[in-house]
Amino acid sequence: MQINKNFNDNLLTPKAELQKRIEKLQLELRQYDLDGALIIQSTDLVYFTGTYQNAHLYIPVEGRPIIMVRRNIDRMKTDSKLDVPIIPFKSMSEIIHFIKQHNLPLPKRLGLEMDVLPVSSFLRYQKIFLDTEFFDCTHIIRKLRAIKSSFEISRIKETSKMMDKIFRSLFEIIRPGLSEFDLVGEIESVARREGHQGLIRVRGFNAEFYFGQLLTGVNSAITSYFDGPINGVGLYPEVPFGPGGKIIQRNEPILFDYVGAKSGYITDMTRTFVIGSIDSKLDKSYQVAKEIQQAIIQEAKPGLPAKMLYDLAYKIAKKYNLIDHFMGAPYPVSFIGHGIGLELNELPVLAKGIEEPLQEGMVFAIEPKFVFPGIAGVGLENTFILNKSGLEKLSSFPDDKIINI
Amino acid sequence: MQINKNFNDNLLTPKAELQKRIEKLQLELRQYDLDGALIIQSTDLVYFTGTYQNAHLYIPVEGRPIIMVRRNIDRMKTDSKLDVPIIPFKSMSEIIHFIKQHNLPLPKRLGLEMDVLPVSSFLRYQKIFLDTEFFDCTHIIRKLRAIKSSFEISRIKETSKMMDKIFRSLFEIIRPGLSEFDLVGEIESVARREGHQGLIRVRGFNAEFYFGQLLTGVNSAITSYFDGPINGVGLYPEVPFGPGGKIIQRNEPILFDYVGAKSGYITDMTRTFVIGSIDSKLDKSYQVAKEIQQAIIQEAKPGLPAKMLYDLAYKIAKKYNLIDHFMGAPYPVSFIGHGIGLELNELPVLAKGIEEPLQEGMVFAIEPKFVFPGIAGVGLENTFILNKSGLEKLSSFPDDKIINI
Repeated sequence: MQINKNFNDNLLTPKAELQKRIEKLQLELRQYDLDGALIIQSTDLVYFTGTYQNAHLYIPVEGRPIIMVRRNIDRMKTDSKLDVPIIPFKSMSEIIHFIKQHNLPLPKRLGLEMDVLPVSSFLRYQKIFLDTEFFDCTHIIRKLRAIKSSFEISRIKETSKMMDKIFRSLFEIIRPGLSEFDLVGEIESVARREGHQGLIRVRGFNAEFYFGQLLTGVNSAITSYFDGPINGVGLYPEVPFGPGGKIIQRNEPILFDYVGAKSGYITDMTRTFVIGSIDSKLDKSYQVAKEIQQAIIQEAKPGLPAKMLYDLAYKIAKKYNLIDHFMGAPYPVSFIGHGIGLELNELPVLAKGIEEPLQEGMVFAIEPKFVFPGIAGVGLENTFILNKSGLEKLSSFPDDKIINI
Repeated sequence: MQINKNFNDNLLTPKAELQKRIEKLQLELRQYDLDGALIIQSTDLVYFTGTYQNAHLYIPVEGRPIIMVRRNIDRMKTDSKLDVPIIPFKSMSEIIHFIKQHNLPLPKRLGLEMDVLPVSSFLRYQKIFLDTEFFDCTHIIRKLRAIKSSFEISRIKETSKMMDKIFRSLFEIIRPGLSEFDLVGEIESVARREGHQGLIRVRGFNAEFYFGQLLTGVNSAITSYFDGPINGVGLYPEVPFGPGGKIIQRNEPILFDYVGAKSGYITDMTRTFVIGSIDSKLDKSYQVAKEIQQAIIQEAKPGLPAKMLYDLAYKIAKKYNLIDHFMGAPYPVSFIGHGIGLELNELPVLAKGIEEPLQEGMVFAIEPKFVFPGIAGVGLENTFILNKSGLEKLSSFPDDKIINI
């Protein structure tokens, strides 16, 4: 017996919204000649059911999906508005039984989220679905999720408002003499008070992440395992990324790259602050980052191949002789931005060579950054919605960088 | 070019410690007739190299391992004391080349971490290692990691000290009228100032986690996807676990179940507080939880089958007619505790039916809890080391529960 209502109704994803998502997936399944998809990853479950429990969501190419819940079925019933059978299950071997029981044909070609599904589970599916061919449907789902509905966009805007407040709070808290770690503790506390969910979903194996970076001076030039231009030293070798113990000083870059997450939806934002002034080379690079952002705002529109935004940024960096520092050094990344939504790393990838056209309803972060190894890194990042007429910048927080204390 | 030293030397795991871990794994590989193990999961990489980068660690059954690093090789070189070849690699197809180049035989039987390895990676390994049979070596690694060295135990003790400070801080901060979410914001800020790494590693697919629970009143009776007795409602349906927006009141249980993590190592701790007094049924249950802990402290010793601790707890719960509430309701879990170390859910599992004997050097959390659906949950949890002579309780924070404000 659970409490009947865990959340206010306005927090639940509407039934029509969930149904539309499922219908769109069914259309795609048909395109790929798949008979169904078995969805188990937490974020994909959130996308199609509005919530996450330990469950298998079976979406047939035609007809009504079923949700088989291992734990906790009461929560799935109260927290999802999807109007489909929600049934308890204990063992994977029951899946076939439940598919038959709901008058659905057994899939001959079945989609699985193979980018994240563990081998041990896959080997069990192979033993259960004896006459089934498996297909990686990750890309199908990610492509669907890249185009945001107006419901999703309103959620993302709420997250962005929270992020503006968090960034403003930094100005009230920061002072020379605090360590990076002291400062993030205070900022994360503000974030939680403002409703930050804490957990930030990043798709993929080993995708460890915690809030983001607050990096100062030489630390802002350091990278890690993560596929980003700057990631910091971290406090311990066992968790070697993010803020560390360095004391914040005057006249050095303070790179604040934090990720907001609220009601599932994420925005990403970076500013480079300084208490005092920074070296003219770093200052100039920050101006170039702003110029890159401005050029992208002017150029981006639906239909443009994603790579064009990267190429444009590259061209501007080259014009200013900053190629050796562009998007990380000595190990640059080859993108200028990334899709964002329920996960930090969604489609589109705004990278070298990506031909896929930008589409209306995409939401992505643009993050021009420059790294000077052994010295510092500077950069700027904002999250944008791609509308019919072009990019809409979400944050109203200024792109500028000087703190006068 | 990275900074030469990212961490003080005393933060790095000593070379001899890492070598010992690898030698022990090699002994196990021989037992299982494996020619090598390919290790890629973040926590296992931390265990064997002392740090984490995007890398493949190949450990042959005999001879010197090699580390192939995709990103960031400089960090792997500076942050690991393991004295083995560290080489850059870009594509999985190079793995065989590097194994041969280092005069190691190609494995006929190769261990992989199949509990977490994604299918998409596995399919690529199958195309690369054409004459190789794959074997799930997860259990081998987890069994090794269950026995902590004195180096690890000293790390775990440091984390426990931090946790005591965090729990003490709750007394200074908590007051009726705060929401659960306001309070955790403040506590997490204290945690970060005390050196909490933020990130808590939980092994397995979809293992989402964030710090733990602070749950009050009816919320402390609610569970989620997570395999634990109590997990809370959460603030949003998209992240439906952990603290929520409920306002903290007098005379209701305040269940504080938080996870500490520092220098990689984790401890787990729960107390049930109250501002004022609670219902005598809940109060009595908390006394029974304390009695269970005490009985386990008296009984546990190396050699005892793990299930005996669960059975003992069950017997005491039964004696007090609390079986319907024992370890969760309506969906109880069938364990009384879990191993802990670099991950929250290590071996041993102290569960019904587990015959494996307890061993000296194991570290685990014992968490007797009682849930009254629609009313509240209460419980206690401490992390212990199993020494030759029995259990050593890590926390010095009192088990009692009354706050006088």
